[in-house]
This record gives sequence, structure tokens and C-alpha cells, in this order.
Amino acid sequence: MTSDLSTRQDDAAPQDAHSRLLELRASIDNLDSAVVHLLAERFKCTRQVGRLKAEHGMPAVDSDREVVQIRRLRLLAEESHLDPEFAEKFLTFIIDEVVRNHRSL
Amino acid sequence: MTSDLSTRQDDAAPQDAHSRLLELRASIDNLDSAVVHLLAERFKCTRQVGRLKAEHGMPAVDSDREVVQIRRLRLLAEESHLDPEFAEKFLTFIIDEVVRNHRSL
Repeated sequence: MTSDLSTRQDDAAPQDAHSRLLELRASIDNLDSAVVHLLAERFKCTRQVGRLKAEHGMPAVDSDREVVQIRRLRLLAEESHLDPEFAEKFLTFIIDEVVRNHRSL
Repeated sequence: MTSDLSTRQDDAAPQDAHSRLLELRASIDNLDSAVVHLLAERFKCTRQVGRLKAEHGMPAVDSDREVVQIRRLRLLAEESHLDPEFAEKFLTFIIDEVVRNHRSL
């Protein structure tokens, strides 16, 4: 019985593995779509922040705010079992893009 | 009347601008939290993909899949008014991290 089962598993494994791969990739694609839409919203917010700061003569960069953002995201990352180093790198990557956008305005 | 209004606006503007800035930052923080949680889920999926590929002797890198992912994300970015170049850079940034994680396993 055990041998029968293991034979069946061996036969089925490549097909199962391929189906499981496609299933995981579909989840990854869904998550990427959600992230892209959230980032589109995020850049809408930062564009508004940029305009507001320009109109009211506020400084373009606020390093205190950045420190708070990094600390906050690192904590959130730990809670959700994401590498905090990666969360910090990710935020820096996004902020660099925001700065590039502000400069190009 | 117009002059009254504009005087009032000038008085109120710095406070309004500051409130509006805090409001936008709260939205940015909410969006960042959502993105961090989605990325945590995404890395859970890619870890499973890594294990599956290792168990079944599938190649670790699939460049055809990467081409499809980039094309898909660029289209999604255009639809949501996000810079497609940025969407591609973002995906590359994430995939680099996935590859780094797989290597460290």
C-alpha cells in the first residue's frame, strides 16, 4: 500500500509540481498587480506633497520624517516576517524615485 | 468680499498646508504598510517556488517568465498612470532580492 502510494506520487509529481508552480506564479502576479496599483496611488500622494511644499515654501527633504518612516517600516516588516533590511532598502528605492520625480518637475 | 476671502486664505494657508501635509503623509504610511504586507506574502510565494524547483530539479531562473512579467507590469503601470520604466525597475529590484534569498538558502 505504501509502495503503491509512493509509485503514484512519483508518477504524478512532475505534473503536480508544474501545476503548483503555475498556481504560485498566478499568486505572485496578483500580488504584483496589487503592489503596482498601490505604488501608483503612493506617487499620486507624493506628487501632491511636492506641489504643496513648493507652493508653501516648505523644504523639499525632511530627514526626520525619513527616519520615522524607516523605523516604522522595519517594525512592520518584522511583524510580517519580511527582512527589515529589505524593507529599508525598498523604502530608500521608492524615496529615490520620488526625489527624481520632484527634480524633473 | 474677495479681498476678505484672500486675507483669510493667507492667514489660514500655513496651517491648512501643514494639516494637508500630515493627511497626505498618513495616506503614504497606509499605502506603505499595505505594500510591505503584500511583499511579505510575495516572498512567501517565491520561497515556495524556490523549494519546489529545488525538489523537482527545475531550473532556478526562467528568463521567459521574467520577460512576460516585465511586459505585464509595464502594461499595468500604464493603465494606472505609473511610469512603466519605474515598474520595470521595481520588478527587477524585487527579483534581485528573490535571487539573493534563493542563493542564501
